[in-house]
Amino acid sequence: MSKYLAITGGVGGAKLALGLSRILGPSDLGFLVNTGDDFEHLGLHVSPDIDTLMYTLSGLSNPQTGWGRVGESWNFIESLGELGGETWFKLGDRDLAVHVRRTVLLAGGERLTDVTATLFRALGVEYRTWPMSDDPVRTLIDTDAGQLSFQHYFVRERCEPAVRGFEYRGADTASAIPEFIAWMSDPDLAGVIICPSNPFLSIDPILALDGIREALMACTAPVIAVSPIVGGEAIKGPTAKIMEELDVPRDARAVAMHYRDLLDGFILDETDRRLVEPIGALGLQVAPAQSLMRTLDDKINLAHTALKLLEAC
Amino acid sequence: MSKYLAITGGVGGAKLALGLSRILGPSDLGFLVNTGDDFEHLGLHVSPDIDTLMYTLSGLSNPQTGWGRVGESWNFIESLGELGGETWFKLGDRDLAVHVRRTVLLAGGERLTDVTATLFRALGVEYRTWPMSDDPVRTLIDTDAGQLSFQHYFVRERCEPAVRGFEYRGADTASAIPEFIAWMSDPDLAGVIICPSNPFLSIDPILALDGIREALMACTAPVIAVSPIVGGEAIKGPTAKIMEELDVPRDARAVAMHYRDLLDGFILDETDRRLVEPIGALGLQVAPAQSLMRTLDDKINLAHTALKLLEAC
Repeated sequence: MSKYLAITGGVGGAKLALGLSRILGPSDLGFLVNTGDDFEHLGLHVSPDIDTLMYTLSGLSNPQTGWGRVGESWNFIESLGELGGETWFKLGDRDLAVHVRRTVLLAGGERLTDVTATLFRALGVEYRTWPMSDDPVRTLIDTDAGQLSFQHYFVRERCEPAVRGFEYRGADTASAIPEFIAWMSDPDLAGVIICPSNPFLSIDPILALDGIREALMACTAPVIAVSPIVGGEAIKGPTAKIMEELDVPRDARAVAMHYRDLLDGFILDETDRRLVEPIGALGLQVAPAQSLMRTLDDKINLAHTALKLLEAC
Repeated sequence: MSKYLAITGGVGGAKLALGLSRILGPSDLGFLVNTGDDFEHLGLHVSPDIDTLMYTLSGLSNPQTGWGRVGESWNFIESLGELGGETWFKLGDRDLAVHVRRTVLLAGGERLTDVTATLFRALGVEYRTWPMSDDPVRTLIDTDAGQLSFQHYFVRERCEPAVRGFEYRGADTASAIPEFIAWMSDPDLAGVIICPSNPFLSIDPILALDGIREALMACTAPVIAVSPIVGGEAIKGPTAKIMEELDVPRDARAVAMHYRDLLDGFILDETDRRLVEPIGALGLQVAPAQSLMRTLDDKINLAHTALKLLEAC
């Protein structure tokens, strides 16, 4: 009864999560998800990374856009625009139901953890999926255009301003949830996988929380990460651009260095084989893999590689 | 430059309002609207009577349902149901934009009066439309099934419980808005029309407010009402059923009696001509009219009758 934890943020993480879910059952696999991107918009609590995982695992994600729901309609946002409302954040009519339901349940006093479980179950997903915290943490991006909230940087400004640094506001007082702590101290825990998500925007907010980095350091099971950087570029999103702006070398080794104190193993793309040795020199087990996850088989294969590497660590 | 005020609640009132708007321009006609049906639902501020008037005057009302918007889609509410949310109040995807926009603007500290003006203008309606108050007033219905909120009685329970009485909660501390008070004391005011709305559910909440009945009693311009009861039946809605349950005679004369202390004139349906004399005996000018408003011409004709009666009073 080996148990695993996957730590994930946006689309890349959700893809590997889907692969893992085709190998491991709901009692053996838990997900810890970034909520630093959460925000209040139009009076609604939006949790983009939780929703990306939920739509991916339930088969409702939109493969064209990479966000939101498949078979979506846009009558709400069109009408809102006619009324002078904000339309830069594209809320689909069906997607909106998730945000409204979440907001109603949170307003009723439920924990985000329990609300998340309710929403996942309603869409047929039985995997434990935990927000990194029930307390609000907000990722702010210091840019050459000033400090921006995550969604203003990511959606409204399309990641164009140059990044100087990050603030994970609230992280110093937010706590990890008890379910995560219990999972981490379960003697059956066989490994932790940091998914190929943006280290600065998706994973660091999680690691900044009281109790999470400590739990990963203390845990006896191996911890591995999958590089989101392939051949010096991010598969999706602004990771490579941000590394450039922060004067960090744009390669998988820099990602391994970033997580170094937590890691026992590392997966990089097979096209980056030249980095196996330098990363191995950091004291890590390194496995090259086909890490572009276009098909479901790609996702399952990468998940298999991750589980094999955890066994070898 | 004669100015008029129409006091209105639901669908019947909105129809006459549309007729009046085809005769009088935006500087000569104001509407005072019931907000006793307003409620918080799914965290949103819903103002059903304001919206009915807005959709009617802007040409967006749905003639099939009698509520909501034309060309509506229902993906939000369908998805909300899949997530275990409340679906008894059918919110269309486009209609939802109005409630979200209103809620955002109210949360930003704007008065309902100003929010209403913003929404009407956005949909191209220039007529002054005032909520009866910026303060919350909630119509509660005492029934044989206990006290019910308006929407629970009207929508969820489909007006089935027998009515014993009403409470207009908040009316004792709510105030009329200054724009209405100014309009009522304008020397150009030429008349007030109480539209054919439900006297108990649509008009009485308005009259219960501090300053409104007084302004109508004090005003030098004539006040008339249009009967919502035709041949002992309501054209739409539970008016006749409620009169029966309250042991009030189900006819136009009982409506005239209900508003008696305010009125100078009264319009009843031409099929109720036998009541012209008994209502005249109350000291009112009485005009029979074709009061079923099926076509736009019907609405305009009834509006003309109302303006003529005001002239005669």
